[in-house]
Amino acid sequence: LRLHINGTFKQRYLMADKHWKQPGGPVLFYTGNEGDITWFCNNTGFMWEIAEELGAMLVFAEHRYYGESLPFGPDSYRGSKHLNYLTSEQALADFAVLIQDLKSTLPGAQHSPVIAVGGSYGGMLSAWFRMKYPNIVVGALASSAPIWQFPGMVPCGDFYKIVTQDFARSGYNCDANIRKSWKAIENVSSTAAGLQWMTEEFSLCTPLKNKNDAFGFKNWLQETWVNLAMVDYPYEANFLQPLPRWPIQVVCKYLAFDSTVSDYQLLRGVSQAAKVYYNYTGSSSCLNTSQTATGSLGFLGWYYQACTEMVMPMCTDGVHDMFEPEEWNFQAFSDECNIIFGVRPRADWAGTVYGGKDITSHSNIIFSNGGLDPWSAGGVTYNITDSLVSIMIPDGAHHLDLRYSNDHDPPSVRAARALEVKYFREWIKQAKKSSTS
Amino acid sequence: LRLHINGTFKQRYLMADKHWKQPGGPVLFYTGNEGDITWFCNNTGFMWEIAEELGAMLVFAEHRYYGESLPFGPDSYRGSKHLNYLTSEQALADFAVLIQDLKSTLPGAQHSPVIAVGGSYGGMLSAWFRMKYPNIVVGALASSAPIWQFPGMVPCGDFYKIVTQDFARSGYNCDANIRKSWKAIENVSSTAAGLQWMTEEFSLCTPLKNKNDAFGFKNWLQETWVNLAMVDYPYEANFLQPLPRWPIQVVCKYLAFDSTVSDYQLLRGVSQAAKVYYNYTGSSSCLNTSQTATGSLGFLGWYYQACTEMVMPMCTDGVHDMFEPEEWNFQAFSDECNIIFGVRPRADWAGTVYGGKDITSHSNIIFSNGGLDPWSAGGVTYNITDSLVSIMIPDGAHHLDLRYSNDHDPPSVRAARALEVKYFREWIKQAKKSSTS
Repeated sequence: LRLHINGTFKQRYLMADKHWKQPGGPVLFYTGNEGDITWFCNNTGFMWEIAEELGAMLVFAEHRYYGESLPFGPDSYRGSKHLNYLTSEQALADFAVLIQDLKSTLPGAQHSPVIAVGGSYGGMLSAWFRMKYPNIVVGALASSAPIWQFPGMVPCGDFYKIVTQDFARSGYNCDANIRKSWKAIENVSSTAAGLQWMTEEFSLCTPLKNKNDAFGFKNWLQETWVNLAMVDYPYEANFLQPLPRWPIQVVCKYLAFDSTVSDYQLLRGVSQAAKVYYNYTGSSSCLNTSQTATGSLGFLGWYYQACTEMVMPMCTDGVHDMFEPEEWNFQAFSDECNIIFGVRPRADWAGTVYGGKDITSHSNIIFSNGGLDPWSAGGVTYNITDSLVSIMIPDGAHHLDLRYSNDHDPPSVRAARALEVKYFREWIKQAKKSSTS
Repeated sequence: LRLHINGTFKQRYLMADKHWKQPGGPVLFYTGNEGDITWFCNNTGFMWEIAEELGAMLVFAEHRYYGESLPFGPDSYRGSKHLNYLTSEQALADFAVLIQDLKSTLPGAQHSPVIAVGGSYGGMLSAWFRMKYPNIVVGALASSAPIWQFPGMVPCGDFYKIVTQDFARSGYNCDANIRKSWKAIENVSSTAAGLQWMTEEFSLCTPLKNKNDAFGFKNWLQETWVNLAMVDYPYEANFLQPLPRWPIQVVCKYLAFDSTVSDYQLLRGVSQAAKVYYNYTGSSSCLNTSQTATGSLGFLGWYYQACTEMVMPMCTDGVHDMFEPEEWNFQAFSDECNIIFGVRPRADWAGTVYGGKDITSHSNIIFSNGGLDPWSAGGVTYNITDSLVSIMIPDGAHHLDLRYSNDHDPPSVRAARALEVKYFREWIKQAKKSSTS
């Protein structure tokens, strides 16, 4: 191990102090999630847009083991011996130490109230950061943060139900035809000719050769529909992939078949739909079924986190959702983790350490959720107390509120952002008051 | 390392359910500190005495690396590689997991509200446990818990000032003569004959041979006076050592000299005073200067904790206290830690992780302190909010309130215990209300 006792590693963080009113102006601190922090920085326009009115400094802190913040450099992912230090608790501790360091070294920052901001896993970290370090952050905006997507807290099927609803409302028979497509893939992939046809029809980089490949292919499509539900934004955007405005509506145009559709017709439609997601810009010469989203996300690191702390049960029944039925199987997942990383997940730990549904004693956290976002299934979608509040954005997808404002933004997200700023101002005022008293 | 991935170790805990009203009766959970849990169990009579009226189960959990709860068995203390897992955060996590496990496996415990109780470092753990795991414990009694005895929070000299005050009020010229004794030791130990006289006078097991030994001897005496201040109980007791009622008064009878006292006379008095502490029962054939208290405390483990997280600045000036002047020297301490354990302490970490003086957002913690207890210097001795309350016991020493009641108990400690039980009842009521709503 290269990181010996008293060892340190370089953690990356980005700062913008153009609008910072020092001394004492607030700090908006993005609690980085599983990926390159520059990517989150560029996709969190909300912070950039409110910096001036709040006189705030912006800080974006990278999560250890992602982007360039690798504790053991290129060896960081070499087995559990090195991965052992990749935990959410350690990430929170990193953030706490970074903030304390900035406060003691940046002139004018000593009395600056700090607000945590994050989306998705970063939003979970923001909420948990406020819960565990209320001395460090005066409040937190946890956008699209599924802090309850853990064993025993929410039904495992809700996530895929929401994905399905998004497709159901975006075009004629859209969900029904996706539900039908799995059997069509089975049928067509049962012959060598069918496999070849599918390879060509979907312009796959790697040909489908057998039933096993067809299984992987279905998983890839399922993940594609999930990702579309996450980024169903009301304007052209490039988050996980470059996509048109309301991409699911565009996708569904290719899936508006009647019940008489043939397997081949249906799969041609599915192929066109998939290409909306994978080739909107027209620059892909073939589709790569081993990747479904931007390379800025740290897939392997997140997988390890899921295999230790971030155990998120998911299931489908094919009735309330448009996917093939699959139960949540903790044991199978644990075995998989053991094979890949040599570790086994602790199903109950996240609930124990972060409080699960029993978080009433905390304060100053906004949980914002989009109604279109499947992750809202594990989110806090109602007010818990006066200071643990939920903001719903019915026509919003995954952390839409954190993105740059756009002419096509629905009124709900505009209202959400205004309310978020209002809470920020209250927390800042509270902090100033208690520091002078 | 014997504890490999997915490895576990046996943690000891003691349970008493004689008075437990199940289902749903409360649990009083002692957050074990740096020592054998049976010893803390036997010295926390308060919990035993209130179990019946509260219908409570008692649990005493041993802190990892102490008593029999050794993660690596006999190798647990073999270098920082093994000691690496000895942290207060890990101890809190152990407690949380133990409670969740008891709740899910003990019939009738599922909805039992749990209250953390602890004294000294165990009290710090109780307070921090409530701060970090409010989902696990509904409240905490932190008795004589110096949660502010960390860098930058309280003056480093207050601890020894209180020790000095205890001696000053317990007998004529008592503090003045101890202040004088250091110079007398210097003088007498400057000759071989003097060293031999001191060895005989103090009945030392190991003879003093040189100036260096005299230095260690002074440290041992200083620790003796500190320990006496901690256990200055109003009745005969055996905590750190078997001692008479109000032991400092007994000690001071041997130190009531006028200013004309000679060095030899003075040191004879000091010797008699020390023997009150080390040989009250008359069973010691000689005094061992390498030990000052019960072997039930894990000295080495605590030293390691001090060398990592538990950095507690102390200093003396010889004016406001009766000791030789010594500044707090973090660098020297850090160097010592590096030599002994190969680790260096993090001066600011305890403040960052446990909130330091900024703990207002937490709730349901009682901080009780004794006015005679030097550790009250680092304790919370005023109400912070309505539910972060201080209980002062002016004539109490170290966590007197946690001990069995005694006919000689001053009214202040009786009142403190009654108030503590009153808070316990409120927390239990709150918990029942919120679990049914």
